[in-house]
Amino acid sequence: MRPYQFQTADKIAAGCHTLERLNEYLNVLPPVRTALVLSQPSIVKAGYAESVVRQLEQSGIACQLNADVRPEPTDQAIIAIFEKYKDEGYDMVVGIGGGSVLDAAKILSVLATNAMTIEEMLGIDKIAAAGVPLILIPTTSGTGSEVTPNAIVTLPEQELKIGIVSRYLLPQLVIIDPLLTLGLPKPITAATGMDAFTHAFESFISNKANPFSDMFALESMRLISQSIETAYHHGDQADAREAMMLGSMYGGMALTCAGTAAVHAMAYPIGGKFNIPHGVANSMLLPHVLAFNLDAIAHRMNLVASAMGITDSHRCSSGEAADRVLERITKWTSELDIPQDLRSFGVTDLDVPDLAIAASKVTRLMDNNPKQLTVDDIESIYRQLIS
Amino acid sequence: MRPYQFQTADKIAAGCHTLERLNEYLNVLPPVRTALVLSQPSIVKAGYAESVVRQLEQSGIACQLNADVRPEPTDQAIIAIFEKYKDEGYDMVVGIGGGSVLDAAKILSVLATNAMTIEEMLGIDKIAAAGVPLILIPTTSGTGSEVTPNAIVTLPEQELKIGIVSRYLLPQLVIIDPLLTLGLPKPITAATGMDAFTHAFESFISNKANPFSDMFALESMRLISQSIETAYHHGDQADAREAMMLGSMYGGMALTCAGTAAVHAMAYPIGGKFNIPHGVANSMLLPHVLAFNLDAIAHRMNLVASAMGITDSHRCSSGEAADRVLERITKWTSELDIPQDLRSFGVTDLDVPDLAIAASKVTRLMDNNPKQLTVDDIESIYRQLIS
Repeated sequence: MRPYQFQTADKIAAGCHTLERLNEYLNVLPPVRTALVLSQPSIVKAGYAESVVRQLEQSGIACQLNADVRPEPTDQAIIAIFEKYKDEGYDMVVGIGGGSVLDAAKILSVLATNAMTIEEMLGIDKIAAAGVPLILIPTTSGTGSEVTPNAIVTLPEQELKIGIVSRYLLPQLVIIDPLLTLGLPKPITAATGMDAFTHAFESFISNKANPFSDMFALESMRLISQSIETAYHHGDQADAREAMMLGSMYGGMALTCAGTAAVHAMAYPIGGKFNIPHGVANSMLLPHVLAFNLDAIAHRMNLVASAMGITDSHRCSSGEAADRVLERITKWTSELDIPQDLRSFGVTDLDVPDLAIAASKVTRLMDNNPKQLTVDDIESIYRQLIS
Repeated sequence: MRPYQFQTADKIAAGCHTLERLNEYLNVLPPVRTALVLSQPSIVKAGYAESVVRQLEQSGIACQLNADVRPEPTDQAIIAIFEKYKDEGYDMVVGIGGGSVLDAAKILSVLATNAMTIEEMLGIDKIAAAGVPLILIPTTSGTGSEVTPNAIVTLPEQELKIGIVSRYLLPQLVIIDPLLTLGLPKPITAATGMDAFTHAFESFISNKANPFSDMFALESMRLISQSIETAYHHGDQADAREAMMLGSMYGGMALTCAGTAAVHAMAYPIGGKFNIPHGVANSMLLPHVLAFNLDAIAHRMNLVASAMGITDSHRCSSGEAADRVLERITKWTSELDIPQDLRSFGVTDLDVPDLAIAASKVTRLMDNNPKQLTVDDIESIYRQLIS
């Protein structure tokens, strides 16, 4: 086996009410005078962004609050925020919000110290220097972005979503406060939760799976499986929300160690061209790609089924376990009202060939898939989602 | 539940032959010109310390190799090493060896930048500033020191072992290369392996146990349980050695999150006064302290038994599971030839009262124990080890 690696946020503080204790954790950072606090309208409305600002100002840090981040942010949108503050400058970035806010915060942290465009940062290890200190506070249980070295940007001209991967995107501090997710609407709970599960699942079956990613992936699948239905139907249950947040974070750790695979490769083109939220795209694709992969991954499905609490790993065949895993995931798709039809996002049969070619070019992720997909295979999977 | 936290080494690279790839991982460090490479005679003899020096010098880093670290190092011994190099200075410390070498390397890293004595560093968060960059490369599977913010020093005048706890003791880079442990002698495999298991077990039953520590603790117990006998009897099996090294590392992560308990509190006094190696002291005490704790922790023993592969967690009562865990640990004690009698280290009945008082004063750890121990309880446990 090739060497495998683990690297994550410098410090993670977790538990209910940790947001209120933000200042207690600041000692992991160098002293800073000013902060750019990045958020989104719903989080400002809920008072969480103000809580960050209030606490930091109590610590003598002057804050600028910006809630302009829109879902699936484009490179221009991020640059527009940077331009707004770059003259005055900022010593630190705090991102409090969903994956889009966290990804934008990561990029704004490195834009502050690197004389580079976002385009020059695209790809792996292109960023030259560490950014300003970065605090990430997720308010959904989905991307796991708070613990990954990745940020995804949408490039509208190219109709693409592309990743920036750099250890300089890892934050110095993460706050995991499940109370921030109590009010998440059902569709977001569903799509982000299935996204997190997909991260764990794909990391576990990735060709680059290893002992580190396996531990995080299995724990993620265990936590999400036991709590996603409760979190969806009874969103105010803090225990289920906490399990989802941890599951999402471990999903992020797993994918950092092992990489994701064909689901993600196929999600980026439909996300880039039709603006389908990342979590929704992943959730829609997962059962179909899983069914395609099933024979190649059956030998690992006993452990997945056991982690998911579906079956005792010692008591059924690999084939049975694989069937039960697929069955459970398919059941979630309908129970959690995951969209089933790409048509509702404007995708038609005519788009499929181009989408399939685009997906086949995401070799960084396709190469991780345990079974090779031809362009025909990819087309056929997309077509299953066009009724 | 109180907030819980995770913090570890900045980067961990694992797998066979990772030592040989040291230079590939140096990009996580700031540029340095000189390194103090700390080791021990057996590791120099095996050629591993020279491998570090050779590779660093290829990267243009001038090295001083010191292999003077003796087991369970005293404050004076560490200061003596520091005095030897302090005029010339060093920009980085690399520790390659067992827990004693790693702990000494951690302290030498912060001595280089803090005008403090070791005595002033004792306790929690007393170190004022970050040390020089630190690389830790364990050659036993035991302390997990490579991923903890702790270092233990022996204070001979006070007949005590005391801990230094500070985030500044966490390394920037850890190399987990199981091949370095292939030649470990049986008694060291046994004592260090049981030490690692003890870290995981005590973290799991600690009053400060939490979702982070539970994951690491269960994975540690799973890995150690499936491999400790193979690693002991067939030390050249790399798979078992790798599982032990990961188990040991996860044990270190678990104890960082949750703290250890009465076994450790009782191990320090016998270690400090009679120079019993830490791993041996823990291994001797574990079954006896476990038996004492058993009724208070039975409700958590199903998960432990299941992780240990002794029982399917769904199919036996908590009491049965607890009995089986105790039985398995006791079996290891005899199969792995863990010493059974404190007399062989010079401890007599007459020493017990003082030892018990000393142990009862290690409140930082005793407070984590799920069942309160009176001084009488502690005496009684020590006496069980004096035949």
